[in-house]
Amino acid sequence: MAEIHDKKTFDKEANTHGFQVSLAHDEPVRLDCGVDLRDINVAYQTYGRLNAEKSNAVLICHALTGDHFVTDTHPVTGKPGWWSKLVGPGKTIDTNRFYVICSNILGGCMGTTGPKDINLETGRPWGLDFPGVTIADMVSVQARLIDHLGIDQLFATLGGSMGGMQVLEWAAKFSERVFAAVPIATAARHSSQNIAFHEVGRQAIVADPDWCGGNYISQDKRPHRGLAVARMAAHITYLSQPALHRKFGRKLQERDAISYGFDADFQVESYLRHQGITFVDRFDANSYLYTTRAMDYFDLSSDYNGVLANAFKGTKTRFCVFSFTSDWLFPTEGNREIVHALNAVAANVSFVEIESDKGHDAFLLDEPEFFRVLSGFIDGAAELRGLPRR
Amino acid sequence: MAEIHDKKTFDKEANTHGFQVSLAHDEPVRLDCGVDLRDINVAYQTYGRLNAEKSNAVLICHALTGDHFVTDTHPVTGKPGWWSKLVGPGKTIDTNRFYVICSNILGGCMGTTGPKDINLETGRPWGLDFPGVTIADMVSVQARLIDHLGIDQLFATLGGSMGGMQVLEWAAKFSERVFAAVPIATAARHSSQNIAFHEVGRQAIVADPDWCGGNYISQDKRPHRGLAVARMAAHITYLSQPALHRKFGRKLQERDAISYGFDADFQVESYLRHQGITFVDRFDANSYLYTTRAMDYFDLSSDYNGVLANAFKGTKTRFCVFSFTSDWLFPTEGNREIVHALNAVAANVSFVEIESDKGHDAFLLDEPEFFRVLSGFIDGAAELRGLPRR
Repeated sequence: MAEIHDKKTFDKEANTHGFQVSLAHDEPVRLDCGVDLRDINVAYQTYGRLNAEKSNAVLICHALTGDHFVTDTHPVTGKPGWWSKLVGPGKTIDTNRFYVICSNILGGCMGTTGPKDINLETGRPWGLDFPGVTIADMVSVQARLIDHLGIDQLFATLGGSMGGMQVLEWAAKFSERVFAAVPIATAARHSSQNIAFHEVGRQAIVADPDWCGGNYISQDKRPHRGLAVARMAAHITYLSQPALHRKFGRKLQERDAISYGFDADFQVESYLRHQGITFVDRFDANSYLYTTRAMDYFDLSSDYNGVLANAFKGTKTRFCVFSFTSDWLFPTEGNREIVHALNAVAANVSFVEIESDKGHDAFLLDEPEFFRVLSGFIDGAAELRGLPRR
Repeated sequence: MAEIHDKKTFDKEANTHGFQVSLAHDEPVRLDCGVDLRDINVAYQTYGRLNAEKSNAVLICHALTGDHFVTDTHPVTGKPGWWSKLVGPGKTIDTNRFYVICSNILGGCMGTTGPKDINLETGRPWGLDFPGVTIADMVSVQARLIDHLGIDQLFATLGGSMGGMQVLEWAAKFSERVFAAVPIATAARHSSQNIAFHEVGRQAIVADPDWCGGNYISQDKRPHRGLAVARMAAHITYLSQPALHRKFGRKLQERDAISYGFDADFQVESYLRHQGITFVDRFDANSYLYTTRAMDYFDLSSDYNGVLANAFKGTKTRFCVFSFTSDWLFPTEGNREIVHALNAVAANVSFVEIESDKGHDAFLLDEPEFFRVLSGFIDGAAELRGLPRR
């Protein structure tokens, strides 16, 4: 197996199976911005076993602040992986059946090369000298990893939100390498409103004097306050108004009456502050700038003369597109645009809008209807692909 | 007329009619937080003439970052007043017919006592020593102004957003003093999501080192970066996704291609940054903390055993409630709750949901259907009140 040549990134005591491999030494990855990037470290995780035909690989693409620890216990936070409800032995994405791969994205901060790493040419952290990255660049690096693992065609690729953008990019650029594709709660182009929310987050970061023009690592500082504010603003967009109302309403936090001051009187304030404070421990501020930017830049049609359908012309990939009724960040409308484009090229596509009041975060949560429909799609595709039945 | 005793706050060259009066010298205003506040300066503006019966007064309540310059040219910004499309000679709120009054809110920063003013007891700016204020406190001070102007009963009170909260408070606390009430794009209690957005703005401000624990004025600093981020985040919530899409889409700002960097590549980014930068010139950061807090605390039912209808028991006021279809900050649902409460006490109430894709800001914009319906309501109420026909 390929992994035995790769470096284990976490110790055995933590009982993790994290790998890191250096790719693109001889042949650099040409990024969309024109830069040739070499010696790219890629941190990744696998679950299950690759079969002899190498036909059971499932690539999972993580979202903006996600990582490659899809399931099992996360080695840093000690919490379950972000999709452990969906992925695991006997689960919808059954690791007894599939070889599941997930890699940290290019520009990330969990082991794959990004702005917090050392620029080998200068010996200093990249900071803002790191080249701008796009969703397509992330996918190019993932494709190198899949090459490295000796896999020609993925059985499936799945992802929600920014992960869904990567799924669309895979299906467009490497159509023959993707048997089935599942973009979830995503869009083929980032909306004006979503760019606006990202810009607020970025401005919160760069407004923090501890950001130091992007060179905070060299100066041994961290823009924690700015990054926390960015996270707080973003976090609201991941939830729905009904979900916030149900969860918090106007309930007070450990008090009987309002303080007439600026403490976190309300539970929702305390919750948001907690989201901000804990985020800065696990995420790099410059990575946040680069990856939000990559989402903003995403407009799949732009590489196809502005016609989204052209991105999928002649595709043989089977698609299943999911949206959630209360997701206002990536509303059904944007997911439907993908379906319309696929229909326009007579692609094999199913589309399901799941009834949920949990907002964008629904794709990470326990949504039985989502799991049930996805399970049906995966089983059907697996049968077509000649994989053994469950 | 009462105003002749009040101080003119802007010079004649600016051709303004701004007044400032000091109220509550002998009898302090008891705030909800328990503090007795004395010698409150109130900045206000009037348009039109009070009739001999003093029956044609219309009180307009401004929104979070609004001010008392409803119409005509704003003396500071040089732009038209914030409701000049609605209020003026021959307009829906006809200043040839009505005596229109608007005062800057308590806790504000445009002439009414707020945290940036000098605390007479210490000789230093109030800063965070300023007492916490509520919507009810703002209304108590407005009521003192209406007393001062010698008016027993307002013909009408109107306001959108936080202004609508004040209208509801007026109708509840001073029912006999309000002949007609028009709450617009508002709610009887601030939602969990809206508290969350406000908390992000406040955290952006207090994260700015130039906020100096609230004492920035004494230290000759201003938390401009934090306040700008707060404004940017809030501004997104004032618009709708369709409006942003229509106005900006993914259009680039003065460039042909993306920069792969962190400039304002997109027009929506440039627009938002502009909103942030210009806001800090006209608004005080601590005022922003206090007034957002007042909105968060607003839950009209809490003074009435949790039953909103009790707030309006026995009311003779005529109500007309407006919402806008694309307003996701103060959605129709919350406005409808007000109507249901009024219905439960058999109040005289009309409710109109205006079709608009302009989001919360619609109440400030040119919405002919809104103007038409409001005009009908005002004319009908004026006839009932025995005011001369248009």
